[in-house]
Amino acid sequence: MTSKEKRGVFRQPDQEAIRLAQSIIDEARYGALAVIDPETRGPIVTRVGLAPAHDRAPLLLVSDLSPHTDALRQQSACSLLLGDAPTKGDPLAFPRITLQANAHFVDKAEYRERYLTHYPKAQLYFDFADFHLVRLSIISALLNGGFGKAFKLSATDLLTEGDPST
Amino acid sequence: MTSKEKRGVFRQPDQEAIRLAQSIIDEARYGALAVIDPETRGPIVTRVGLAPAHDRAPLLLVSDLSPHTDALRQQSACSLLLGDAPTKGDPLAFPRITLQANAHFVDKAEYRERYLTHYPKAQLYFDFADFHLVRLSIISALLNGGFGKAFKLSATDLLTEGDPST
Repeated sequence: MTSKEKRGVFRQPDQEAIRLAQSIIDEARYGALAVIDPETRGPIVTRVGLAPAHDRAPLLLVSDLSPHTDALRQQSACSLLLGDAPTKGDPLAFPRITLQANAHFVDKAEYRERYLTHYPKAQLYFDFADFHLVRLSIISALLNGGFGKAFKLSATDLLTEGDPST
Repeated sequence: MTSKEKRGVFRQPDQEAIRLAQSIIDEARYGALAVIDPETRGPIVTRVGLAPAHDRAPLLLVSDLSPHTDALRQQSACSLLLGDAPTKGDPLAFPRITLQANAHFVDKAEYRERYLTHYPKAQLYFDFADFHLVRLSIISALLNGGFGKAFKLSATDLLTEGDPST
């Protein structure tokens, strides 16, 4: 089976799937960010704090002390996994979404209010000089709503028409 | 600042850090797995179920329906993020570990008892023909014990002398 045929297991999303995907992004305050390690050229995945921009594009607050920050400066292609795994039940039965995206470093001050409204605890470190704000341009997404419920979504399915600069 | 200098922010682990890292791996039943997407060559991160082998190497149960499985067959370099983010408090203040590893597809039957003892809910699908077992050979690890507590660990710090074949 080729990867193309396998991609066939991902269904076209219906309204319910789109709403689920959007709500996972709206509620996520952290995620697993995968980037390319500039030293090994292999992937590396770390936890990041985040909030949604007005159009729902994820905003990541990243520190120079974390390996993902330097990696994103060198290669903007990245992936973000969102969705809590509850402590009870099979973690694979709970919904999560994988975004494939490009990262852009943006003006932190512009997004300050939006970010801190959604992630007030970041007030402790948001303004530190070694913290930066990264905005993800979503390319595509895979929603896994639990066993047998896999959907492939586009950026258009996820984003709203909110002001993309905030 | 070069990446090499930045690496200096990762401390050498003491016994407490090593114990914390080991316990995160021992207790994890799921993680965020980053692989290289064979189509885009960018990273892609998805949720996987897992259990520790006798020597603490992570064992992942992966399905042909998930994009990571085909990706790992084509490029074994991967990364795994482990550690729960509690629902209260800043998710960045809670410990997690990033492993960099190589993935090896192994004989599923050999690890059946070990896997299902740690992950009994997988009995529903462990024996399905499209599920495979992958064992990670750890190359190195980054432990983030919360703000300002970052350690770089080696495979030797994490693995025990348990029988590596189970």
